[in-house]
Amino acid sequence: MGWHGGGVAEELDVDQVEQLRAAMEARDGSALLAAAGDLHYADLAHLYENLDEEERDFFLKTIGPELATDVIGELPWTLIEEALEHFKPAQLRIILGNLSDDDRVDIFQIVSPANQRRFFSLLGPHDEQLTRNLLKYEEDSAGGRMTTSIGRITADMTVKQAITVLRRDQESAETLSRIFVVDEQGRLVGKVRLRDLAFHPWATLIFDIMEDADERVLATLDQEAAARMLAKYDLIVLPVVDEFDHLLGVITYDDAMEILQEESTEDIEKLAAIGGEQSELSYLNTSVQSHFRRRVIWLVVLAFVSIFSGYVMFRFSEVLNQAFVLSLFLPMVVAAGGNSGGQAATMVIRAMSLGEVSTGMAMRIAWKEMQTGLLLGATLGVAMGAFIYFLLPMLQAQTDVTYARLALAVSASLLIQVFSSTLLGALLPIGARSIRLDPAVVSSPSLASTVDVTGMLIYFSAAKFILSL
Amino acid sequence: MGWHGGGVAEELDVDQVEQLRAAMEARDGSALLAAAGDLHYADLAHLYENLDEEERDFFLKTIGPELATDVIGELPWTLIEEALEHFKPAQLRIILGNLSDDDRVDIFQIVSPANQRRFFSLLGPHDEQLTRNLLKYEEDSAGGRMTTSIGRITADMTVKQAITVLRRDQESAETLSRIFVVDEQGRLVGKVRLRDLAFHPWATLIFDIMEDADERVLATLDQEAAARMLAKYDLIVLPVVDEFDHLLGVITYDDAMEILQEESTEDIEKLAAIGGEQSELSYLNTSVQSHFRRRVIWLVVLAFVSIFSGYVMFRFSEVLNQAFVLSLFLPMVVAAGGNSGGQAATMVIRAMSLGEVSTGMAMRIAWKEMQTGLLLGATLGVAMGAFIYFLLPMLQAQTDVTYARLALAVSASLLIQVFSSTLLGALLPIGARSIRLDPAVVSSPSLASTVDVTGMLIYFSAAKFILSL
Repeated sequence: MGWHGGGVAEELDVDQVEQLRAAMEARDGSALLAAAGDLHYADLAHLYENLDEEERDFFLKTIGPELATDVIGELPWTLIEEALEHFKPAQLRIILGNLSDDDRVDIFQIVSPANQRRFFSLLGPHDEQLTRNLLKYEEDSAGGRMTTSIGRITADMTVKQAITVLRRDQESAETLSRIFVVDEQGRLVGKVRLRDLAFHPWATLIFDIMEDADERVLATLDQEAAARMLAKYDLIVLPVVDEFDHLLGVITYDDAMEILQEESTEDIEKLAAIGGEQSELSYLNTSVQSHFRRRVIWLVVLAFVSIFSGYVMFRFSEVLNQAFVLSLFLPMVVAAGGNSGGQAATMVIRAMSLGEVSTGMAMRIAWKEMQTGLLLGATLGVAMGAFIYFLLPMLQAQTDVTYARLALAVSASLLIQVFSSTLLGALLPIGARSIRLDPAVVSSPSLASTVDVTGMLIYFSAAKFILSL
Repeated sequence: MGWHGGGVAEELDVDQVEQLRAAMEARDGSALLAAAGDLHYADLAHLYENLDEEERDFFLKTIGPELATDVIGELPWTLIEEALEHFKPAQLRIILGNLSDDDRVDIFQIVSPANQRRFFSLLGPHDEQLTRNLLKYEEDSAGGRMTTSIGRITADMTVKQAITVLRRDQESAETLSRIFVVDEQGRLVGKVRLRDLAFHPWATLIFDIMEDADERVLATLDQEAAARMLAKYDLIVLPVVDEFDHLLGVITYDDAMEILQEESTEDIEKLAAIGGEQSELSYLNTSVQSHFRRRVIWLVVLAFVSIFSGYVMFRFSEVLNQAFVLSLFLPMVVAAGGNSGGQAATMVIRAMSLGEVSTGMAMRIAWKEMQTGLLLGATLGVAMGAFIYFLLPMLQAQTDVTYARLALAVSASLLIQVFSSTLLGALLPIGARSIRLDPAVVSSPSLASTVDVTGMLIYFSAAKFILSL
């Protein structure tokens, strides 16, 4: 025991970890068991990731199927199948039976078909039927993420009858913070809190103390929308129903937290043009090959897109040759578009992820970004124009055009480039969503590569026009 | 009532919103009250944001202080002070008394000193003392975010005594999902679940059924670290203690969800070089001025940094004049550094935010990114070299250097640029953290502006060398 203070809360008690490591080294089963008992299973799962093959085998066999169930529920998916293969059928039967039904169905979704068949044969008839039912839902739907282990009572029960029913179910129910009231067809009709049962006279009818269970989601709804609803209404559990309002299960607050964190990570990675599935492993445990694979595709694609920028520059060689001082501000005009467009895209993508804006608000978003983009472009244009007109002469920089013309060319192209890139950055994610793509495919680098081309065109066209005056 | 299916779960029941709007238009108080009663207060708070000044006054006065308390608890901070000013002292007294203590202290933190004094005078002595105590904690610490309304019992009580105590406190306790056991000095010694009370015989001693409350945090700990701990251990509430282990309050799962979402948004915005405080308002309700302010600073700074790139290009004019075909691949080499560096920085920053890596792991991170960067640079170099050597001749592109030399210059500089940018992108956030800056200050655009300069240098140096062979 000990509070977590100083630095990061995630830091484990060093002594406990030391003891565990020492027990592992010495292959001392009873010392390992004692050390493991002092640690939280989430921490054990984290430590497990860093063990080698032989250590994992010793670890799993020593802690036994009961504790292993908790640890396996916290492991990244990529390690679960291999971990289960360390156990004999009799132990596997215990583990698979002990797992919560949402964890179990997740595991059945990822293991090989051969292992899936084998694991099914180890389940009791009730768990087998339940798992087969849950496997019907998409992995990332509310139905695929829900747990069915909940407290269910009916409205015609007394508080005493309800407590008797719940006491019988208490070991299997994942949470009794909310207890749901169903009718004889299993349709959701209300909810009570455990405290309402604990503090009311035993003869009270559930009907008289239950509340409406307004918040509910369809099993087919996307898990992210369900998680966001849980967060919005501060719910501990959110009931999941079918189209006839039959109560199927609940999404719990801890699943919602996990879902929202995963989705945030996904947005962040997509915005940086990192592709593919998120690694279930932590950064350092992810292989170089996997890091490489997730990054290389976009890098190569974007490199070829950048040749278009080069082509524009190549075609305007005579403008650059006429006044090579233009090269001083070329990278700036080009980059300002990528930066301002990336800011706008990021704001809109995050607002969409948080459910603040939808595609129907495209006009209002465009209007806001047009004003913002105009202000940004004007500010940058004026700042840079003033710098060129007033400061550049003091630096005695050599130029082959007048400072006034240079300032005009740079300011005008900055204004156009920043304004158009801001608008494009805001509208592209909305366009992507409206054709049912993830808005975050409009990553900042892909947007930058696009507006680099327009930036080159705008800059050289403006310069050519102003030099010809 | 009705489940949320089709599109986004956040969409409200259109009929209910229509009724509320109609009641607002008609200034029909009783119809408004009826319509508001059908909606969740989180939705009412969202609708409130979109009302004009006069409508807000009518709305708040009609729904009365009881419902207004719930709505105000959900409002963005910027609107709260103004909302409170609509009420008379007698009503304010009710609202301030009804607020949960963490919401109340948040409000006291943001209002003007004059309003703070006025609000204090409206609090009862107990609430006033509590609020003054809580105001001592930093806003973004665990102590600043905790609620003190929790169920507390002692180990020497029987289940029946505990239930009596909790029944008395049930209205004020924010959650009874976890009930904490303290000793006579108020030190945290254990926890029980409400179900343990509900299902055990009344004569059972709490001592015999309580569990260890291992997970706890110091009140001074950063709120993000506390939230991450809640998520990691799947806790509904996390006890907050002082350095003597006295139980001060708890952080609840819904606060943790909010904190983690705020931190994710902050990371995402910083990565896109958006500065300043997050707007408490939704994207569309944030003013153009505020959007402008948060984006303009970095845009201007980055623009001036980009002049260094231009300066390098300007200085190497003779290389470009010698072989203008080099301009075809200049934007590509430069952009490849920004893109690969941005990917690496994003991976490391997110891993730090999720607590997966710390500054002590700098060497391991550098080693992973060196390998990844080398693979990425080699792949890009080979792909682009092959394109130039084999495909460019087919396009009959005019060049003033041999294809082999051009391919060599581009490949070599791509390899060096991608490798060095990847390494720099991974190490800069670690460096920032080690001098106690937020790693996310290393935004993708600021990194890109930096490696643009190195990219220009690398490309022109390589070209100059190879042309001279």
